[in-house]
Amino acid sequence: MTNRLELSGVIAKDPKRSQSPAGVPHCHFVLEHRSYQREADLPRQVYCYINVVSSGKGLQVLTQDLAVGVHTKVAGFISYQTGRNGIGKLVLHADHIEIICSGD
Amino acid sequence: MTNRLELSGVIAKDPKRSQSPAGVPHCHFVLEHRSYQREADLPRQVYCYINVVSSGKGLQVLTQDLAVGVHTKVAGFISYQTGRNGIGKLVLHADHIEIICSGD
Repeated sequence: MTNRLELSGVIAKDPKRSQSPAGVPHCHFVLEHRSYQREADLPRQVYCYINVVSSGKGLQVLTQDLAVGVHTKVAGFISYQTGRNGIGKLVLHADHIEIICSGD
Repeated sequence: MTNRLELSGVIAKDPKRSQSPAGVPHCHFVLEHRSYQREADLPRQVYCYINVVSSGKGLQVLTQDLAVGVHTKVAGFISYQTGRNGIGKLVLHADHIEIICSGD
């Protein structure tokens, strides 16, 4: 079953790092994307933001340099998550993180 | 700027077909996805659903056979849309629709 999202954008909030009781490291951040895409043969402006979570020791090295303003490309699968407020949202579970420019 | 989602799943609601004042045909439907993915070297169950819109005459032929229960693979870009109720959601703007099985 295909489930693959590749999205580049700017990190909009300071990443939050945590560790599960089993010792698995997690890094949560928000990725903001702006671009022009084509739809029905017409150009259109596109905006979106998505919550991203990256889990596991393998990705920890990659997430160390993530901070607000960093331009990055992220890839992984999407999953639906219902928040405490009962509102659901799609979350990108990243298995690939590539820093495009540090945003200095 | 990269913005590409590929998702396979089952059509969960009857597609709604409409036409814009400029004569551009649109087809709206909801895609439900269930699968197992790997995260932090562990298997995990994944569920999500997403609103899909496909626009333009080029895709009209593809959307004719879409109905509840049809298993399909969809690809395109994602964009953020705020509904009348003020709640935002990600929408998949499809430029590729492939029927995997008709679900009879």
